Amino acid sequence: MKVIITLDELRAARQMLEGPVGLIPTMGFLHAGHISLVRRAHQECASIVVSIFVNPTQFGPKEDLAAYPRDLKRDLALLTPEGVDLVWTPTPEVMYPPGYQAWVTVAEVSQPLEGGVRPGHFRGVTTVVAKLFNAIQPQKAYFGQKDAQQVAVIRRMALDLNFPLEVVVCPILREPDGLAMSSRNVYLSAEERQAATILYRSLTTARNAFEQSERDASRLRSIMMGVLNSEPSARPQYVSCADPNTLQELEIIVDQALLSMAVYIGKTRLIDNLILGEK
Amino acid sequence: MKVIITLDELRAARQMLEGPVGLIPTMGFLHAGHISLVRRAHQECASIVVSIFVNPTQFGPKEDLAAYPRDLKRDLALLTPEGVDLVWTPTPEVMYPPGYQAWVTVAEVSQPLEGGVRPGHFRGVTTVVAKLFNAIQPQKAYFGQKDAQQVAVIRRMALDLNFPLEVVVCPILREPDGLAMSSRNVYLSAEERQAATILYRSLTTARNAFEQSERDASRLRSIMMGVLNSEPSARPQYVSCADPNTLQELEIIVDQALLSMAVYIGKTRLIDNLILGEK
Repeated sequence: MKVIITLDELRAARQMLEGPVGLIPTMGFLHAGHISLVRRAHQECASIVVSIFVNPTQFGPKEDLAAYPRDLKRDLALLTPEGVDLVWTPTPEVMYPPGYQAWVTVAEVSQPLEGGVRPGHFRGVTTVVAKLFNAIQPQKAYFGQKDAQQVAVIRRMALDLNFPLEVVVCPILREPDGLAMSSRNVYLSAEERQAATILYRSLTTARNAFEQSERDASRLRSIMMGVLNSEPSARPQYVSCADPNTLQELEIIVDQALLSMAVYIGKTRLIDNLILGEK
Repeated sequence: MKVIITLDELRAARQMLEGPVGLIPTMGFLHAGHISLVRRAHQECASIVVSIFVNPTQFGPKEDLAAYPRDLKRDLALLTPEGVDLVWTPTPEVMYPPGYQAWVTVAEVSQPLEGGVRPGHFRGVTTVVAKLFNAIQPQKAYFGQKDAQQVAVIRRMALDLNFPLEVVVCPILREPDGLAMSSRNVYLSAEERQAATILYRSLTTARNAFEQSERDASRLRSIMMGVLNSEPSARPQYVSCADPNTLQELEIIVDQALLSMAVYIGKTRLIDNLILGEK
């Protein structure tokens, strides 16, 4: 497993890889969710590249860029037994050298939900992912369904900009009590960790209603909000019942719907989601 | 020479090409300048792809999109003897299908000059060129120095977004009287065609001053404007003496400078430029 920092070294090492090449873009502080992406890539690719980069341009000025957990040594220890070929760990200066000024944006799908409360977030995401796609030239790129809007935005970007690769989306991995795995879970105190299970309970309560034939999206949003409000330490930022591709809020669920939410537990912002009507 | 419309056919045909692949992106209505790019590509590439697409997103609402000259039959006749492997002639619907929403922008370099008088122009250019790069995956892409700011913007985009290719810039081809070759020259009446030589005379007058040691950029701008004003049918939109990479106006020329201008001759908007101090 080669660990590489500069773009020139990356390009040279990429030349030597047998295709198809699978890319798993990460911000590090890896957990079982990331590892599940690597294992999925192994089923479909001859070579695996993991990028680890806490991308400053997707954090807002008041967000947790400085505090975001980092532990490269631990990350490399987790990746070593997984048969990864290359790990790219560019510095911010490698990604955004002086004079940097190119941006990739996806308009409509980036606007609601995370885009509404994190202005500029998706511009940072699409820009860095476009850079990763161009630098690494994978045939397949793996993303977790945990970041549901990110998945929709990147699928749209790949399609619209003709990126010659397949975007593969893998299911959310959850702790035994239902909490979605996230690098940010490390921020939670023991009490908050307990309270954080409210997100998944809120989602599954709405799913139960859907399975009992509820198709009114605003009723499902009310159900989710009601469950969240039952937890005193939870401050919901949004709850949504939207089209999984466009992220537009639904009135009535005809086919599929994406239930999603952002909730503060103490000072920690958590997101989670669930797709209804998936075949 | 295969002529291809859809993206799927393009991808299939691209697979069969021997590398390195050279791309010449054009808006068609080809002239000797375009052909010079093809011939340069032949010196360096095993396979040649020419794209022909009058890109609607780089035209402003009051610009000449509908009037822009098109003659695919003639273009193909010109390319046939040049040993081109693929010609991609996508329709607007192939490039921008319903729901299209991804954009590539280059911030600072796109702002002055053409960007100042053609708002949104470079967003259209960088977006379509990014799409061409991803769809065709060339090792080298050829552009004419005629569009000097486009060259600076695309170089910046390729660098910043890690496109795995080399941007090759080829010199302006001129008519015997100095007029830069352009598809838009067809708009000119016989009288305007004569008047249009004022652009190159303006540039060379300033170059003469530079060669006689003039280094004051505002003096060179005045010289160019003076020559343009001597032609009654010329309406200058801007004249510039700027850094060739950043396009920022200079005060004093230390090393290189890009002289450039946009001038209306009747209703036809022409641009031209010349680099001072080139090694």
